[in-house]
Amino acid sequence: MDGPVRQRSLWQHNLALVLRHVATSAPVSRAEVAAATGLTRATVSSLVEDLLRADLVAEVEPAPRAGAGRPATGLVLSAGGPAGLGLEINVDYLAAAVVDLTGAVRHHVVHRVDQRDRQPSAVLADVARLAAETVGGVDLTVAAARLAVPGLVDGDGLVRVAPNLGWRDVDVAGPLAAAEHWPGLPVSVDNEANLGALGELAAAPSASFLYISGEVGVGAGLVLDGTLFRGAHGWSGEIGHVTVTPDGPVCRCGARGCLERYAGQEAIMRAAGLDGGREPVALGRLVDLAEAGDPTVRDALRAAGTALGIAAAGVVNLLDVDAVVLGGTFAALAGWLHSDVERELRSRVLTARWSPVEVRACALGPAATVIGAAGAVVRDIRTAPAAWAGAVH
Amino acid sequence: MDGPVRQRSLWQHNLALVLRHVATSAPVSRAEVAAATGLTRATVSSLVEDLLRADLVAEVEPAPRAGAGRPATGLVLSAGGPAGLGLEINVDYLAAAVVDLTGAVRHHVVHRVDQRDRQPSAVLADVARLAAETVGGVDLTVAAARLAVPGLVDGDGLVRVAPNLGWRDVDVAGPLAAAEHWPGLPVSVDNEANLGALGELAAAPSASFLYISGEVGVGAGLVLDGTLFRGAHGWSGEIGHVTVTPDGPVCRCGARGCLERYAGQEAIMRAAGLDGGREPVALGRLVDLAEAGDPTVRDALRAAGTALGIAAAGVVNLLDVDAVVLGGTFAALAGWLHSDVERELRSRVLTARWSPVEVRACALGPAATVIGAAGAVVRDIRTAPAAWAGAVH
Repeated sequence: MDGPVRQRSLWQHNLALVLRHVATSAPVSRAEVAAATGLTRATVSSLVEDLLRADLVAEVEPAPRAGAGRPATGLVLSAGGPAGLGLEINVDYLAAAVVDLTGAVRHHVVHRVDQRDRQPSAVLADVARLAAETVGGVDLTVAAARLAVPGLVDGDGLVRVAPNLGWRDVDVAGPLAAAEHWPGLPVSVDNEANLGALGELAAAPSASFLYISGEVGVGAGLVLDGTLFRGAHGWSGEIGHVTVTPDGPVCRCGARGCLERYAGQEAIMRAAGLDGGREPVALGRLVDLAEAGDPTVRDALRAAGTALGIAAAGVVNLLDVDAVVLGGTFAALAGWLHSDVERELRSRVLTARWSPVEVRACALGPAATVIGAAGAVVRDIRTAPAAWAGAVH
Repeated sequence: MDGPVRQRSLWQHNLALVLRHVATSAPVSRAEVAAATGLTRATVSSLVEDLLRADLVAEVEPAPRAGAGRPATGLVLSAGGPAGLGLEINVDYLAAAVVDLTGAVRHHVVHRVDQRDRQPSAVLADVARLAAETVGGVDLTVAAARLAVPGLVDGDGLVRVAPNLGWRDVDVAGPLAAAEHWPGLPVSVDNEANLGALGELAAAPSASFLYISGEVGVGAGLVLDGTLFRGAHGWSGEIGHVTVTPDGPVCRCGARGCLERYAGQEAIMRAAGLDGGREPVALGRLVDLAEAGDPTVRDALRAAGTALGIAAAGVVNLLDVDAVVLGGTFAALAGWLHSDVERELRSRVLTARWSPVEVRACALGPAATVIGAAGAVVRDIRTAPAAWAGAVH
C-alpha cells in the first residue's frame, strides 16, 4: 500500500482479508473469521454480506454436533461464483479450460490442430470460437479470460515474437476481443510458461520454484516469494536461451549453445535419430522407444537432462529457489530426465549440501498452462475481490 | 499488509508515508505533504510532531520570496538524526562507514590487514574496536550496525561458509555483540554482494539490476522490482558458481567450469601470468600492465569479461533486468571488461534487440559494500520509522 489508508481502501483491504481467510479455512463461521482476522464481528458480518451478494462466498449447513447450542453456519468459497476462462495457443493445439472460484477445473478441452504457418487472424478466429463454445457450455458466470501464447508477450497483449508459431509483433488482445464469436469478456495475454507456473503454484503451493516448460521451445516461469516474477518488461523466463556450452551449436536466436539446442523438442528428436515430423506423434514414439530401452533415445534424453540440470543449477545458485518443476513435455519425460537433472544440481549448486533442491514433475502435467490461465483469472478475483464485488453492488 | 488495519498500524503506515514524502520532495511544507498524501492537515501536523521529536525530520527556514504571505517552514530529513554504521570484513581489509539519515556518507575508513588464516574471534575483536572508534569519532547517534561478510550468511548472523576467509559455520552476530569494545548497538550480518547492491541502489536508484562483485570470489546482488532479492534461505547471488563451461576446470566448490574459475581474482592473476601474492599489490600491478597494453594481461581480462558476459546473459534471459553493474574489483577493471561483457549480452540475450542491457561500473566503486551496509540501516529506519519514533516517545 503506497497511499494513505482511507475508508474505501480499508473496505477493499478487509474484504480481501476475509475472503482469504474463508479460502484457507473453509468452512468457517463469521465468529471464527472475526477471531482470526482481528476485525470486529459487526465488520465481518457486513463484509460477508457484500461477499454473499457478489456470490464470492456461500453458506453451508453446519455438520450436526453433540452438545448444547446451535452450531454456526459455515462460509465457503462459492463454487457458483465468478469463474475464469483459460485459453492456450500452442504449436500443435488450441486448448480451453474453466476454473471456478474454488479452484476446481470445471471444463477442459484440447483441439489438436497444427497452428504453424497459419495466419494469426485465422488462429484468433478459432480461439474466439473455442472461447464461445466453452463459455456457452458451462453453467457459470465467466468473469474474464487469459490467453497463453508460447512467446514474448508485452503487458498490453502484443506478442513480440513467438518463434515456433512464426509470429512477430502480433497484437493479440485487440483482434481477439473484436473477433466475431468472442464472448465479450475482458482478455489478457501471457506467456505459456508463466501461466504453467501459476497452474503449478495453485495445484502445489510453495514459496519458490523454477518451472521449466518443454515444448518445441523451452521456457521458464519463476515463482519467487510465493508470486510469479515477471521482470522489468515481462520478459523473464527465457531459460531456453541460457548458454549451456559457449561454443555449442548455433541456435535459431543467433547465439551459440543455448539450452534449447539440447533440450528443445526438435533437438531431442534429432539426437534420438527420429524424424521431427509432427510433435505429438514423434513424442509418443520417443516415449515408446525410451521405454523399450533404445540406447540412442536414452542418450538423447540423458543429454537433454544434463543440459537442463546445468541451466537449472545456475538459476538455483542465483535465486536460491527450493525446487525445479518439469512441465510441458518434460512432465511426460520426467522419468528419464529426473536423475540427470538432479545429478547436475547436486554437483553444481553451492548450497546443495545444506539444502538439496527438489526436482519434480509438474502436478497438472501438460494441462498446467491452460488450467493455470483460467486459475490466474480466479486468483486475481480472490486477491482483489473489491473490483468484482463493487461491480455487482 | 497481511493483518487488519487498526489504529496502531495506521499510525505506523502514515508515519512512513509522511517521511517518504519528505525524503523525496524536501524541502516540503506540512500543507504540501497533506496535499500529496491525501491525509488531513491535522493528521500531518501530528505525524510531523512525532517525526520532529524523534529527530527524523528537521525544519528549515524558507527562502525569502516575493509577494504576500509568510512562506511555510520547510521539512527535510534530519542530517542529525539516527545514523547507520556499516562494517566490512574482507580478505585483505576491514572497513567502516557511517551514513546519516539523509544518505550522506559522514565517515569512511579502510584498514588494510590481511584477514586470511586468522581466527574469527580475533577478526571480530578488531571489528568491535573499529566500530567503537568509528562511533566515538562521529557526532551522530548511531542506531544500529550492519556487517558485510564475503560468504553465505543465514538470517540469524551465522556465516555458513566464507571460503576465502577460511570460515565455516561461524556465529558472527552473537560474539560481535559480546566483544569487549563493541559499542552496544544492534547488529545484523549480510553478504557483501547484497550490501554492495544496496549501496548501488541508494547511489543510483533503478528498478532492476544485477550487481556483480569481483573479489577473490565472485558474488552477485540482485535488485528486482526496486528491492534486494534474497532467495528462499538468503543464499541468492552465487553467480561465482554458475557454470560457464560444463567441462571446464574444477572449482574449489567441486564443480567444473564455474564463473569464479574465469573471473575470480586469482583466476585472472593466474591467466595474466602474475603471482597471486597479496591481492592489493597484485591488482595494482595488473592494472599497470593492462594500461601498458601487455598482451597476456589483456587476454586474461578479455577471458574474464567474456565469462562474466556469458553468466550475466543467462541472468538477463531469466530475470529481464535492465542493467549489469560491475562492482568490487570489477569496478576498477571495468574499462577492460566492459566491451566483452557487452558483446556477450548483445549476442546471447534474446530480447537485447528490443531493449539493450546497460553495462556500467558501480557508482561507489569498491566502497559500495561498506557504504551500502551503513545505508541499509538508514533505509530500514526510513522505511519503518515507527520503531525508532516509538522508542524515542
